[in-house]
Amino acid sequence: MDIKVLEGVFDANEKIAAENRELFRENEVFAMNLMASPGAGKTSLIESTIKGLGKRLRIGVIEGDIASSVDSERLKNLGIQVVQINTGGACHLDANMIRQALEYIDLTALDLLIIENVGNLVCPAEFKLGEDLRVMILSVAEGHDKPLKYPLMFSDSEVLIVNKTDLIGMGDFDLEELRATVKRMNPGITIFELSCRTAQGVERWVDWLYERAS
Amino acid sequence: MDIKVLEGVFDANEKIAAENRELFRENEVFAMNLMASPGAGKTSLIESTIKGLGKRLRIGVIEGDIASSVDSERLKNLGIQVVQINTGGACHLDANMIRQALEYIDLTALDLLIIENVGNLVCPAEFKLGEDLRVMILSVAEGHDKPLKYPLMFSDSEVLIVNKTDLIGMGDFDLEELRATVKRMNPGITIFELSCRTAQGVERWVDWLYERAS
Repeated sequence: MDIKVLEGVFDANEKIAAENRELFRENEVFAMNLMASPGAGKTSLIESTIKGLGKRLRIGVIEGDIASSVDSERLKNLGIQVVQINTGGACHLDANMIRQALEYIDLTALDLLIIENVGNLVCPAEFKLGEDLRVMILSVAEGHDKPLKYPLMFSDSEVLIVNKTDLIGMGDFDLEELRATVKRMNPGITIFELSCRTAQGVERWVDWLYERAS
Repeated sequence: MDIKVLEGVFDANEKIAAENRELFRENEVFAMNLMASPGAGKTSLIESTIKGLGKRLRIGVIEGDIASSVDSERLKNLGIQVVQINTGGACHLDANMIRQALEYIDLTALDLLIIENVGNLVCPAEFKLGEDLRVMILSVAEGHDKPLKYPLMFSDSEVLIVNKTDLIGMGDFDLEELRATVKRMNPGITIFELSCRTAQGVERWVDWLYERAS
């Protein structure tokens, strides 16, 4: 593939991302891009975050999936604004998809917009959406050696959430080794350890996000 | 991005994949493309497969990663031919990467070549490598709702291995629902349920692969 074509794609994306960012600023909406592998717990974290913050902040969600509306159906029950994007095969969200989704969202009625990216630890890291905060999840079940193998996502996220900590001890997951590796690659990253299933550790994350987003 | 450019990329890939396939046939090597999310257990399955089949078949591995040689270091201890591909950012292997890696492998000394793709449930499904068999892994920790969200991988694989079955019961994973969904999408798919950690179910997979590959 011609490199110039790719550069053109990235340039166009950056431009639209900047426009999205401006739109969020005008409406005083804090936008968060949530990225992770399939099944790491993105939708579960959003549910936990809404339960913990929903009384303090007005929250909306953009759901990104290749196909299906499984996740947005789950979230609609929580009584929030949800828009589903189906990428139709594309392995990540891009700024233009967000711009189109924003036509279906009333930003004036929101404080916090959570964008759930396509489940993929690689490609989403390359496409800025106009977000204020880039959050990634790693599930304990994925193993502590992932930062070395998927470096861009770990070095480019501002927050790492280690989810499914209730599974620690079931395998050979080494939390200290994970923390050390990630901090070497990205010294400024903030790390939370929690379990959406048991709710352990969720409060600390929710309180931190409230401080950032409000 | 211009659609024509993408079509050109896919056409070129198909052509090189056919050449790889011919090379495998000439050397009587059975090639298997192994795909899954990060941390689903690709390298663990390869280790289990080598332990179960290594006395019956001569096995080699091509390790695909964006960065690092963590996995090939793991496998070298098993005394087999291993070649590491670092894609340098790319989110999948393609046929040309395999062609280049084959220059470092003695195919005449192999019966089975296992190609571990980049950890990604999306993009690897789109690029044929010249393989005889397409195998995907889903970890129980990822959840049973993944086929609807990542349809191409599930509909295009000939084998689904459900790994980490020792975690069933820790969450709300529904094996029967998974099986029903996948069989609807891909009636011809063969499904194995196993745990690389406890070795339960591995023998059935290994025996099946032996029949196919020998």
